[in-house]
Amino acid sequence: MTQKKSYRLSELASHLGLKLVGDESCEISGLGTLANAEKGQLSFLSSPSYVDQLSGCRASAVILSEKFISRWDGNALLSESPYVAFAHASKLFVETKVPAPGVHPSAVVADDVNVPESASIGPNAVVESGVQLGERVVVASSCHIGANAVLGDGSVLKPNVTLYHGVRLGRNVVIHSGAVIGADGFGYAFDGERSIKIHQLGAVLIGDDVEIGAGTTIDRGAIDDTVIEQGVKIDNQVQIGHNCRIGEHTVICGCTAIAGSAVIGKYCVLGGATGVVGHIEIADGVQVSAMSLVDRTIKEAGVYSSGTGFMKTAQWKRSTIRFRELDSIARRLKELEKKTDTE
Amino acid sequence: MTQKKSYRLSELASHLGLKLVGDESCEISGLGTLANAEKGQLSFLSSPSYVDQLSGCRASAVILSEKFISRWDGNALLSESPYVAFAHASKLFVETKVPAPGVHPSAVVADDVNVPESASIGPNAVVESGVQLGERVVVASSCHIGANAVLGDGSVLKPNVTLYHGVRLGRNVVIHSGAVIGADGFGYAFDGERSIKIHQLGAVLIGDDVEIGAGTTIDRGAIDDTVIEQGVKIDNQVQIGHNCRIGEHTVICGCTAIAGSAVIGKYCVLGGATGVVGHIEIADGVQVSAMSLVDRTIKEAGVYSSGTGFMKTAQWKRSTIRFRELDSIARRLKELEKKTDTE
Amino acid sequence: MTQKKSYRLSELASHLGLKLVGDESCEISGLGTLANAEKGQLSFLSSPSYVDQLSGCRASAVILSEKFISRWDGNALLSESPYVAFAHASKLFVETKVPAPGVHPSAVVADDVNVPESASIGPNAVVESGVQLGERVVVASSCHIGANAVLGDGSVLKPNVTLYHGVRLGRNVVIHSGAVIGADGFGYAFDGERSIKIHQLGAVLIGDDVEIGAGTTIDRGAIDDTVIEQGVKIDNQVQIGHNCRIGEHTVICGCTAIAGSAVIGKYCVLGGATGVVGHIEIADGVQVSAMSLVDRTIKEAGVYSSGTGFMKTAQWKRSTIRFRELDSIARRLKELEKKTDTE
Repeated sequence: MTQKKSYRLSELASHLGLKLVGDESCEISGLGTLANAEKGQLSFLSSPSYVDQLSGCRASAVILSEKFISRWDGNALLSESPYVAFAHASKLFVETKVPAPGVHPSAVVADDVNVPESASIGPNAVVESGVQLGERVVVASSCHIGANAVLGDGSVLKPNVTLYHGVRLGRNVVIHSGAVIGADGFGYAFDGERSIKIHQLGAVLIGDDVEIGAGTTIDRGAIDDTVIEQGVKIDNQVQIGHNCRIGEHTVICGCTAIAGSAVIGKYCVLGGATGVVGHIEIADGVQVSAMSLVDRTIKEAGVYSSGTGFMKTAQWKRSTIRFRELDSIARRLKELEKKTDTE
Repeated sequence: MTQKKSYRLSELASHLGLKLVGDESCEISGLGTLANAEKGQLSFLSSPSYVDQLSGCRASAVILSEKFISRWDGNALLSESPYVAFAHASKLFVETKVPAPGVHPSAVVADDVNVPESASIGPNAVVESGVQLGERVVVASSCHIGANAVLGDGSVLKPNVTLYHGVRLGRNVVIHSGAVIGADGFGYAFDGERSIKIHQLGAVLIGDDVEIGAGTTIDRGAIDDTVIEQGVKIDNQVQIGHNCRIGEHTVICGCTAIAGSAVIGKYCVLGGATGVVGHIEIADGVQVSAMSLVDRTIKEAGVYSSGTGFMKTAQWKRSTIRFRELDSIARRLKELEKKTDTE
Repeated sequence: MTQKKSYRLSELASHLGLKLVGDESCEISGLGTLANAEKGQLSFLSSPSYVDQLSGCRASAVILSEKFISRWDGNALLSESPYVAFAHASKLFVETKVPAPGVHPSAVVADDVNVPESASIGPNAVVESGVQLGERVVVASSCHIGANAVLGDGSVLKPNVTLYHGVRLGRNVVIHSGAVIGADGFGYAFDGERSIKIHQLGAVLIGDDVEIGAGTTIDRGAIDDTVIEQGVKIDNQVQIGHNCRIGEHTVICGCTAIAGSAVIGKYCVLGGATGVVGHIEIADGVQVSAMSLVDRTIKEAGVYSSGTGFMKTAQWKRSTIRFRELDSIARRLKELEKKTDTE
């Protein structure tokens, strides 16, 4: 089923476009960290802070910056971005097979759907009427593709993904299991007695090269579309509300919750379990630390946080009581300062 | 597959019970916001703060309060609750087809289950023994309905929903993809060495007109049932622990976590990513802002919050260090006040 | 379908290894809390704080500590750990049938997979090539078992669970619906323009007797494996990043988010909606209260918290403004103290 990959170091150097120092014929059959790599594995020095680990490293070759070559007497591939080179190398050692093209007999595909010969539709998948499938798309087992959805060339849905009707994916989009794209946005008008549903008439538009984690949910727009721009990477269990726009190449870590109509810039990084309230904007290049609540617009790039930091619970209880008195504390301090000045 | 909806403005006025000002024969084929609506669309003025947008609005008609009619020279539908009227209108423009009644040949339905002629069971759905299905229920593709579950008339399960055994839904309940209703509550007794499972013998009871978002989980009760009362609206990725009771018409925003045995009143609004600890009560009419932790009972209606607000990380680091000293700061301030008073 | 369970009190005493006081032939057909139990039910006194409820209790028997027997004149089972005894008793009253062994005709099982006669593969389940299934495993409807995964004896997957390729489960592991085990860890190297995927070559290793809640996601390791040790209990919608290690018998409450490479000790308890940042360690026996953020290593057992506590929003707004000034407040206080001392 899986096939063990093995490469000569010269093949890797050529594939990665890196200069090789040492034995060209050295065989590499896997990757390892500096601390844990075994003979036959390729490792990497991603940060100067790990340079001391080179001395005990058992890897058969290491990707590193030329300036550290004096610290390593084994085989090396030279790169000014060893972590990026390692990322490219990781693709060569993936052991899963690409599913064979074709439609599994247990899949249920609407008559009007054209399945390209290069596409793979897995067992028990459901593809509704009007769906457009690009070349080489993979729809794994038990996925549901709602009516009129569009999957661009090379897009891959892992098992148990749900796309509601009209969702449009660009090229090379990857969506992990349990994700739900295009469910109704959370919109109601309260009539004084009960919540009247606002039917969600928009869709979700996802750009090229977006990856979406397991269990993530992205809601369809109320009137206009929810938009995820190209190159965005979204971790597991993220929630993105209706009519959000996420700017290109932004990275959203796990369990982040983004309320409706928030507009997030390009090249942002939202730390894990962050909250973003609705109808605000975040500028390009903003970084937010884990578990912060962004409750108003951020106009400038920079690093932002909220929260108290953690501590022993006994101390924390005292601090939280005082937190409620904080305005009084500040006023009383000011009062004292005045008094002391005038004495 | 989908059908473009179009209505004369007079039809909409009649359907919505609103007074029409302007051209009765105007054709409306969709909805739009004041800012983005195009010719042929109906828009709405939900709040006085948007009244300036009326001047540039291209919509063919606008729902608004009579008091703003002087600001708009196009066609209008008059309503004292334009947002509620818009919600009712949104239903008329839904483009998805209701699934045709019948049982898909790939569905697996237990022999003892009576499927009403008006019901629709989608591809690869599984319906276990003892399940009761109401009129017009929709069980979409790959749903699992556990033994003895009950679905009231008009209830709709989107694809990939899981109901465990014995879960009971009222009428017109809507559950979105990936939601899991009735999994075991999280209960263990620690014997000093390991956690002994407390088997969860209760069920989940969900009232009429409840809507449940994608990826939401509601656990079955330990002994008694977990109860969601009528009209409750629950967003995506909400977690509701065993033996909670959620009062009618309460609204729970995305990613909120409610621990076991919490009792939440009627007409509450829990902001997104809120936490509620177990075994507490929240009164009717309480509103909690996003990402707050409710860690004790709330006895009075009102608006509640927690958290620090966000700030630049450099400033935040200084504040969090001082937060740990807060009790000391308060005591020292009091000491100084005494000293200054007696001087 | 379900069968009502009923036992003589003497049978229960014998099964649980407890001393019986009262009527041996008393019939017990269910469990109930002290407050709500009916005739025919067994209740339990788990904490001295509920002892007053014994007087009005209608249960036919109560599990309690011998020291409270004078407060109860009905039938009793004596235990020094009534809650643990109750947990053991709960297993006797489970009403769901174990699925019958065998492979449902709609399941899609790869030719090379050996299904033990004692195993049950449900409708529309998919089992890929190279998978190893232990004795008595249950794979419920619409589960996906990726290539080369291993399920130990007695493991149970509820409907709609996804295991990616190579995931290995120990014995008696239970995984609830919607959980996704082994999706790609969230790893990218930024090349200055876009995020380059680091393909995730590790797997997930889950020990014996682990239970995993609905909608929980546990990512595969980047190079080495993500490891969940034996006896760990994980609630719903928990996210565990790549290369985490969770120590044995640790309990993780709902909606907790643990970033990559965090190492958590044995016998810890993480409260609901807690966040743990990546690359830190938590010692054995640490307890963290709900919705705390653990943003650095914890070296000592103990109870830890973060957050501000909640309050009325008007007061909270004033406190959060002052929180930003907290460092200045502390410095000014120190200044005043100096001044007052020298006067």
